[in-house]
Amino acid sequence: MIEYAIGGGRMKQTVNKEYYLKKAQENLPKLFSDDISILNEFKQLNSGDSFVIDLGNHYVGYFSFVLGYTDIYPDAPVRLRVRFCESKDEIDSDFTTYHGSLCPSWLQEEIINVDFVGEYKMTRRYAARYIKIDVLFTRRTITLSNFVFSAVTSADKSRLTPINIDDTELENIDTVSVNTLKNCMQRIFEDGPKRDRRLWIGDLRLEALTNYYTYGQCDVVRRCLYLFAAADCDSDGFLPGFLYENPIFVSGSWFLRDYALLFVVSLCDYYLYTGDEKTFLDIYPVAKKQMDAILNAVDDNGIVVVKDKNNIFIDWNPALKKITSMHGVYLYTLKILCKALGEMKHHDAQMFERRYQDAKQAAICHLYNSTENNFANEYDNYQISVHSAVWMILGEVVEGDNAWEILQAAMSDKEGPKPVTPYMNHYLVEAMMNLERNKEAMDHIKFLWGMMVKEGADTFYEIFVPGKPDFSPYGDSLINSRCHAWSCTPSYFIRKMLKGK
Amino acid sequence: MIEYAIGGGRMKQTVNKEYYLKKAQENLPKLFSDDISILNEFKQLNSGDSFVIDLGNHYVGYFSFVLGYTDIYPDAPVRLRVRFCESKDEIDSDFTTYHGSLCPSWLQEEIINVDFVGEYKMTRRYAARYIKIDVLFTRRTITLSNFVFSAVTSADKSRLTPINIDDTELENIDTVSVNTLKNCMQRIFEDGPKRDRRLWIGDLRLEALTNYYTYGQCDVVRRCLYLFAAADCDSDGFLPGFLYENPIFVSGSWFLRDYALLFVVSLCDYYLYTGDEKTFLDIYPVAKKQMDAILNAVDDNGIVVVKDKNNIFIDWNPALKKITSMHGVYLYTLKILCKALGEMKHHDAQMFERRYQDAKQAAICHLYNSTENNFANEYDNYQISVHSAVWMILGEVVEGDNAWEILQAAMSDKEGPKPVTPYMNHYLVEAMMNLERNKEAMDHIKFLWGMMVKEGADTFYEIFVPGKPDFSPYGDSLINSRCHAWSCTPSYFIRKMLKGK
Repeated sequence: MIEYAIGGGRMKQTVNKEYYLKKAQENLPKLFSDDISILNEFKQLNSGDSFVIDLGNHYVGYFSFVLGYTDIYPDAPVRLRVRFCESKDEIDSDFTTYHGSLCPSWLQEEIINVDFVGEYKMTRRYAARYIKIDVLFTRRTITLSNFVFSAVTSADKSRLTPINIDDTELENIDTVSVNTLKNCMQRIFEDGPKRDRRLWIGDLRLEALTNYYTYGQCDVVRRCLYLFAAADCDSDGFLPGFLYENPIFVSGSWFLRDYALLFVVSLCDYYLYTGDEKTFLDIYPVAKKQMDAILNAVDDNGIVVVKDKNNIFIDWNPALKKITSMHGVYLYTLKILCKALGEMKHHDAQMFERRYQDAKQAAICHLYNSTENNFANEYDNYQISVHSAVWMILGEVVEGDNAWEILQAAMSDKEGPKPVTPYMNHYLVEAMMNLERNKEAMDHIKFLWGMMVKEGADTFYEIFVPGKPDFSPYGDSLINSRCHAWSCTPSYFIRKMLKGK
Repeated sequence: MIEYAIGGGRMKQTVNKEYYLKKAQENLPKLFSDDISILNEFKQLNSGDSFVIDLGNHYVGYFSFVLGYTDIYPDAPVRLRVRFCESKDEIDSDFTTYHGSLCPSWLQEEIINVDFVGEYKMTRRYAARYIKIDVLFTRRTITLSNFVFSAVTSADKSRLTPINIDDTELENIDTVSVNTLKNCMQRIFEDGPKRDRRLWIGDLRLEALTNYYTYGQCDVVRRCLYLFAAADCDSDGFLPGFLYENPIFVSGSWFLRDYALLFVVSLCDYYLYTGDEKTFLDIYPVAKKQMDAILNAVDDNGIVVVKDKNNIFIDWNPALKKITSMHGVYLYTLKILCKALGEMKHHDAQMFERRYQDAKQAAICHLYNSTENNFANEYDNYQISVHSAVWMILGEVVEGDNAWEILQAAMSDKEGPKPVTPYMNHYLVEAMMNLERNKEAMDHIKFLWGMMVKEGADTFYEIFVPGKPDFSPYGDSLINSRCHAWSCTPSYFIRKMLKGK
């Protein structure tokens, strides 16, 4: 039982894990189903034959078809290999040579034996634009037809308004963004519908943000927040970076300090978007616990120091030193928390405001390099990274033109680490927008996300490094997800800009 | 529409395919389910691990298990290879080298991806004593437990009475016989629950016979008779040798003359066992059509001559010449048809009695070799086969000690073809029993079926040639069925002998 009291005349509440899970269950979003019927395909096939179905777009859902025969009833089961491909290059890839660090079972391929003529419904859910079917064995000539891909999502397309912008490039990027979000929006905000299909805080935060400006589906946000509220913290009091909820609720086993703070951010975003104080206060004790836990990581200089690099994410760039970025995440979290608490006149606001000022002062003293006007500091072995600059800007340690100069220098630095994930690029764009560099922000979106659109992407990828199509943090790009939640945010930026807030 | 009139004061009836199918549907037997729970098995596994579950007996049904984990939730689908083995030697066989003529998809092996912890139910039906599970890929240590094999059959075990005989060997053979029948008794009498799972006339006849003396389940017999009555005859008027009924009714495409006649035999057996004249008369027009069709194959000598050897089965022995055997099947059919029609005082009885006498006379003149006292004749290129002797005895062309002598000579003939299937061995034993050689018949049962029991068979095999374990009519013994309907008849002989009729 977590017992906690709220000041300012609010009621005393008692909450616990079961309560949070019950609330999560109550907020299970409605799932919408759309059948993509490929009715013009009718295949007459024998052993060894193969063909590809193009769904015309990337979808997440269930596949079925009708098995028939021509002259003679197929007097043996029909053995098919069915491969679901998010992108064209998966169609003919050799899955047997896969050598990545993640489990090969994520590669979407099945061998099925179909006993009976008639409709055959595959039971697992897949993420696909293309479906390749190889007829491994059949005794007779068979027919396959009535291909249906039953797409599912909790995104209600009727709530989505098109954008009104005189820029086809941004329009196209927006289309792919909302498609990415739609396909990741299921019972929860999944990180990727092909892989890993779980709820990560980092993805949740960006999906929820984009959702506020697109589908506006708040059940699923509440559900995700309650689920994390129910999760088991580590011995330091931090939430896990991820969790599972289907078919059973399981807390994740990887504890990321930046993600734990971004949970607080996600809760504040939710309140600031919806004004739903009740839900905020329901979950606030868990958020506060994260803020208290991080205090224990603050060193004598006032800097958040997480000793084990594995406990910070920031980005998939292995060269990156992360202390400065992590401290920036802390500042960023404090800022948004103060804003939310301030709006509801919560008595904790002042305390966090003081923490923010202390942490900002510490950053100026110990992270900012005034000689060089950058964030090359001892904590990060004097590394100049885009990440440090971005998070110091988001934490408002530097501002205005000077901040822009620091960012530009980090971006053009030949050796310093650059973002490799659309996730980190989101925060880069956010930093640009915060500096009111909307044009440059849109240019960066066009450069990075636009390049994926030009490549023919229906949804935005988990990993995208221009010029390095085979880059993978998992040792083999075959396992990379081609529809990934954390890449869906261009719609957030574009629509926010159009809305003027 | 088949319109036909029955003499002897019986009503005029009108029947057609739809009617027969409706009747088949009405007689869908109840399926009994028995859960074989392997509760003492609890496996803790990683990628590359493998184990075998022994069900303790051969069953037909559905398999389920529970996936769990030890410390860390398995954050990727678990890919398993699950092989269902009717016999021990399948467990480690290499299925990739299979080179038989039948479709490899009959080999009972699946690759499945299990997404969720909890119960996993495999949807296809399997025939198995052993289940081998290989963990192909898992990201974490998993557990597999609560293995349940849900066995199905339309045989009601409560109706089965044990035999009372002071002969352990026969007792054991009876046990394996009824188990074989039970596992082949499903919605229809299947030939083999692993392969081909369809209704063949040859198997139907033997399963029904054994069923009368064991489970006494007559719905399924009626259903099978009606199904064949609904089948599409070839241009000569003959029924197909087999048909499918699940999920749709499909007439088979292989027309075997001996099987077409054995359909008539099966109908007569049914009447003689049940006394159900109504069903007999319902289907009789189809039976009569077979008898009329075969008349067209009778040559000037009065012998049934089927020119294309592929249109006669008799046995899987490729060396066999089949005219004499086929004529024997004709005589045998006429005998039993006369008996059934005689019992109900049907006016066709006399006509068939005349046909029998003519056909018997023809056999004596043109098939029997009086010089050598055997059935070496011109029609069969003077081949001496056990098959010819058996069917001439069953057709009562020869009788008593002389018949026994002819049979013994054929069996000990060094070159002549011998039975290779338990199916043909059934008719050999029946011939022995007809000659009142019960002891020799039981000795033959002990020799052949008893040898399978000694080998550890839970059910009797489709193919069994002592000393030739790898013999297969399909080019690879991997595809042979180890539980085959036509091998279940020892119980019929043993129980009939014990009953004294």
